[in-house]
Amino acid sequence: MHNEQHVTSSETIRDIVIGMSDGLTVPFALAAGLSGAISSSGIVVTAGIAEIVAGSIAMGLGGFLAGRTEVDHYQSELKREYDEVERVPEQEKIEVMEVFADFGLSAPLQQQIADEMSKDKKKWVDFMMRYELGLEEPHANRATKSAITIGLSYIIGGIIPLSPYLIESNSQIALYYSCGITLICLFIFGYFKSKMTGQPAFSGAFKVVIIGALAAGAAFMMAKLINGK
Amino acid sequence: MHNEQHVTSSETIRDIVIGMSDGLTVPFALAAGLSGAISSSGIVVTAGIAEIVAGSIAMGLGGFLAGRTEVDHYQSELKREYDEVERVPEQEKIEVMEVFADFGLSAPLQQQIADEMSKDKKKWVDFMMRYELGLEEPHANRATKSAITIGLSYIIGGIIPLSPYLIESNSQIALYYSCGITLICLFIFGYFKSKMTGQPAFSGAFKVVIIGALAAGAAFMMAKLINGK
Repeated sequence: MHNEQHVTSSETIRDIVIGMSDGLTVPFALAAGLSGAISSSGIVVTAGIAEIVAGSIAMGLGGFLAGRTEVDHYQSELKREYDEVERVPEQEKIEVMEVFADFGLSAPLQQQIADEMSKDKKKWVDFMMRYELGLEEPHANRATKSAITIGLSYIIGGIIPLSPYLIESNSQIALYYSCGITLICLFIFGYFKSKMTGQPAFSGAFKVVIIGALAAGAAFMMAKLINGK
Repeated sequence: MHNEQHVTSSETIRDIVIGMSDGLTVPFALAAGLSGAISSSGIVVTAGIAEIVAGSIAMGLGGFLAGRTEVDHYQSELKREYDEVERVPEQEKIEVMEVFADFGLSAPLQQQIADEMSKDKKKWVDFMMRYELGLEEPHANRATKSAITIGLSYIIGGIIPLSPYLIESNSQIALYYSCGITLICLFIFGYFKSKMTGQPAFSGAFKVVIIGALAAGAAFMMAKLINGK
C-alpha cells in the first residue's frame, strides 16, 4: 500500500516535469523568436496561445494514448504467458532457468527454483512478466490522470513566458521581461526537478536554463534571418 | 551481440517516433491556429520555423540530458551496490532472498540462491541492479545519438505542415493544403509506428490523425477567439 502510493506520486511528478519543462521552454522560445521579427505583442500572444493549446493537446493526448497502449500491451502479454504456462510448462521452466543461468547459478539450483516456482501459477507468470519480459503492471486509470497532468503542466508553464506580452504591447520590450521571468522560473523548476530525481540541484538547474536560453536564442536569430532584419 | 543490435535499433525507432509525432503535430496546429487569425503566410512561416527551431532544440537537448542523467544515475547506483556488497554482504544477501520470497520460494531455497549468487560479485551486483533496483545498463554514447535523432525527426516532421505556407501567400488557402498533406502524413506515420510497436495498425493510425486534427482545430478556434473574428 505504501509502495503503491510512492509509485503514483513519483509518476505524477514525472508527468508535471514532462509537461512543465516543455511548456516553459517552447512557448518562451517561440515568443522570443517572433519578437525578433514582429514588433506587435498581439501576434506574439496569438501565436503563443495557439502553441500552448496545440502543445498541451499533443502532449496530453499523447500521454493518454501511450498509457493506454502500455495497459493493452501488458494485458496481452499477461494472457500469452498464462497460455504458455498451461500449454508448454516445461519450456517455460527452461526460461526461468535461463534467467538464473545468466547470474551464474548452478544447473541443479536452477532446476530447483523452476520446480518450486511452477507450483504457484500466478507468481510464476508474475515472475516471467517482470524478469523475462521486463514489464511492470501499469495502473489502469493512470492514462487519464497522466494526460490531464501533462496537459495542465504545459499550459501553466506556457502562460509564464507569455504573460509580459499580454501587458506590454511592444514585443521587443516584453521580450526582456519574458526572458527575465522565464529564466528565473526555469532555474527554480530545474532546481526542484533535480532535487526530486536525486541529481545535483545547481548543475541540473543550470542545464534547464541553458536549454531554454539556447532554444530562445536560436529561434530569435532564425526568425530575424527569415525576415532579413 | 544480436540482442544489443536489437535494442539499439528499437531505441532509434522510439526516438524517431518521439520527435516526428510532435514535429508533425505541433507546428501543424500552430500554423493552423495562426491561419485562423492572420491572413499572411509570411508570419505563419516565421512563427512555424521559430517553433521548429525551439521545439527541436528543447526536445533534442532534453533527450540528450535525460540520457546523460540515466548514465550518471546507473553509475552511481552501481558504485553503491559494489560498496554494499563489500561492506554489508549479509544485508545484501537478505535483499536477494526478499526478491525470491515475493515469488513464493521457500526460505531454504532463498538461502541457497543467495549463497551461490554471492560467490561471483559482478553477477551478484548485476542481479541487484536489475532485479532489486530495476535498472538496465544504458548505452554510454546513446545520449548524443538520441538527441540528434529526436531533433532531426522533429525538424523533418515540422517542415511538412509548413511547406504549403512557403508556396501560397494566402494563409487561409495554404491551410487547406497543409491539412491535407499533414493528415495523410500523420496517418502513414501512425500506421508504421503502430506496426513497429506491435499495435493494431489502422486504429493506431486513426488515433494519431485524431490527435493532430484536435490540436489543430483547437488552436484554430482559440486564435480566432482571441482576435475576436
